[in-house]
Amino acid sequence: MDFKVLKTDGKARVGKLTGTHGQTETPCFMPVGTLGAVKGLTWEQVEGMGYSLVLANVYHLYLRPGLEVIEDAGGIHSFTGWSDLILTDSGGFQVFSLGRLMKITEEGIEFRSHVDGSKHFFTPEFVVEFEERIGVDIGMVLDECTPYPATYEYAKHSMKKTLRWAKRSIEARTTDKTALFGIVQGGIYEDLRLKCVEELTKLPFEGYAIGGLSVGEPKEEMYRITRLVAPNLPFDKPRYLMGVGTPEDILEAVEAGVDMFDCVMPTRNARNGTLFTTYGRVNIKAAKYKRDFTPLDPECDCYTCRNFTKAYLRHLYASGEVNSVILNTIHNLRFYARLMEGIRRAIREGKFKEFKEEFLKKYRGEGG
Amino acid sequence: MDFKVLKTDGKARVGKLTGTHGQTETPCFMPVGTLGAVKGLTWEQVEGMGYSLVLANVYHLYLRPGLEVIEDAGGIHSFTGWSDLILTDSGGFQVFSLGRLMKITEEGIEFRSHVDGSKHFFTPEFVVEFEERIGVDIGMVLDECTPYPATYEYAKHSMKKTLRWAKRSIEARTTDKTALFGIVQGGIYEDLRLKCVEELTKLPFEGYAIGGLSVGEPKEEMYRITRLVAPNLPFDKPRYLMGVGTPEDILEAVEAGVDMFDCVMPTRNARNGTLFTTYGRVNIKAAKYKRDFTPLDPECDCYTCRNFTKAYLRHLYASGEVNSVILNTIHNLRFYARLMEGIRRAIREGKFKEFKEEFLKKYRGEGG
Repeated sequence: MDFKVLKTDGKARVGKLTGTHGQTETPCFMPVGTLGAVKGLTWEQVEGMGYSLVLANVYHLYLRPGLEVIEDAGGIHSFTGWSDLILTDSGGFQVFSLGRLMKITEEGIEFRSHVDGSKHFFTPEFVVEFEERIGVDIGMVLDECTPYPATYEYAKHSMKKTLRWAKRSIEARTTDKTALFGIVQGGIYEDLRLKCVEELTKLPFEGYAIGGLSVGEPKEEMYRITRLVAPNLPFDKPRYLMGVGTPEDILEAVEAGVDMFDCVMPTRNARNGTLFTTYGRVNIKAAKYKRDFTPLDPECDCYTCRNFTKAYLRHLYASGEVNSVILNTIHNLRFYARLMEGIRRAIREGKFKEFKEEFLKKYRGEGG
Repeated sequence: MDFKVLKTDGKARVGKLTGTHGQTETPCFMPVGTLGAVKGLTWEQVEGMGYSLVLANVYHLYLRPGLEVIEDAGGIHSFTGWSDLILTDSGGFQVFSLGRLMKITEEGIEFRSHVDGSKHFFTPEFVVEFEERIGVDIGMVLDECTPYPATYEYAKHSMKKTLRWAKRSIEARTTDKTALFGIVQGGIYEDLRLKCVEELTKLPFEGYAIGGLSVGEPKEEMYRITRLVAPNLPFDKPRYLMGVGTPEDILEAVEAGVDMFDCVMPTRNARNGTLFTTYGRVNIKAAKYKRDFTPLDPECDCYTCRNFTKAYLRHLYASGEVNSVILNTIHNLRFYARLMEGIRRAIREGKFKEFKEEFLKKYRGEGG
């Protein structure tokens, strides 16, 4: 993997990330394709809206279809038909958040499948092996996601285990075709976060992620930790803020020097009828859209906004049509792609602060 | 509306149907877009696979979003964003089949909404008015769909009412922008069917449909009635066999001189994981496809077959991903479009019989 910072504007940066299967400009947003598919879209559509890096999940792919099926297919790219970059999260977070965790030991984590209740055990070594064998471009190490709130002692203990696991992950590597990213933990405690950065960056990871945020803490805590950690990560490596977030969150984090993002929000909200627009969020369920024959977002160039009205989108949602999922997802993901394009353009022009202000001014006007 | 028969081969015909919003070659299959959307596909995809005529449903559109919303939007085309031909079924069949029928009188049908239980009344005049006001290219009249089995007396009574309603429908017309098709009923009784044809064709409909088939009767009955009725309908008007059917059914009916078809089968089966292929039906759920890394149908040119394996399609189905609906629907509808293309080509070359035999030989081999 190769990463180059092409331009900075304050702490914000534009970069280019090149992996085994393609390249992407940063700051970038990664659509979530948990099971090897972005819910509601064909790859043609994902690519067509400007994405060349998507996220999948070891925990989910391990359960379905399983390592051997993907390996027999020739790897995750030939199995899924996605030919560009893929990053996999280890699934540690999913084990915690799906409530299937049974035990965390020094060795690893024991959990039950949410599909059939069967028992499984992940070690840091196994996660690296899984990611290498299915051939992802970027693999995340197994970490222990510190919950919020957590005591200082708990967060410290947890962060130290994450560091020991990070070391074991590095030692388990067998190829550089799959880049490996370490994950900074430490809860909301600044000294723990900085200690974690210090130790983690001694290990030869290709990139570094900020984990354990967007887990229920107040926004200001998330921004404070991001502003602390990001600039302390190596300048010449990509920085990834995991599981974040809203357009506002992304703008804050880019300003702090973050390069990569992922979040279920655009895709999940699309399925719930919550749509992101230039003028704020739109709840397409609302009765007021029944006869609103204007486009969802007049400034958007997506297929949905070019061809349909809010009244039609509301009708599809109200009727429970699967097409509602499709058209809403097309819009929300294109909205995020356009946001990232705007961010990169602004950084290139040295106008990130103005872009952020102008974007938020319109966005916070709320409602088209 | 304009219809021309361009070529015949036995009773089979190739024609061209031109309506207010476009044209289509016949024999054609109409994808079902009940609520103003083909479940799982964007219009771009529907058009891209060769369809220029889709079917919607008065009963469903009347309940959601309702006449006034569609009218305010400027009609069904601007409301849905589909710019080609639209045919609407009256919804009489839906009232019967959804079990919401309350009463049939000489005046019309009383039913309850399957959405909220509210009471409604359709007359033949209202259905025509609805179709004209939303601006469909082809509207079907309100008929009474004779169930199977039905006594001779019942079928006769029912057919006669359908004829009286047909006359009222014609009298209710106010524009020729919406073509009107009459519907032949009469159950499985040959003399009733012929009587119905005789009377119905005295009325100036732009096309004629065969209704009341595919309602539970044995295949041979369906074929017998189709072979009897189709050739007795006017040569220079389109003939539409409603709600039919499997690839075999379509081939039989084309041979009898039918021009138009609609059926939920390709779309509904796609959602249930049943896929049509050159070599028969494939149940993508089956465990044997877990590691089958070959395309679904090697002879198909659809997006799904060009890019994905049976193993991936099975994975999406087994994981309950909405993408399973999308990719399966893309394939099944393209399979039907290719079948119709093949049929038209064969008729043009005077080789329909050979085409039918060859198609069925492969198709009945069952399983790729």
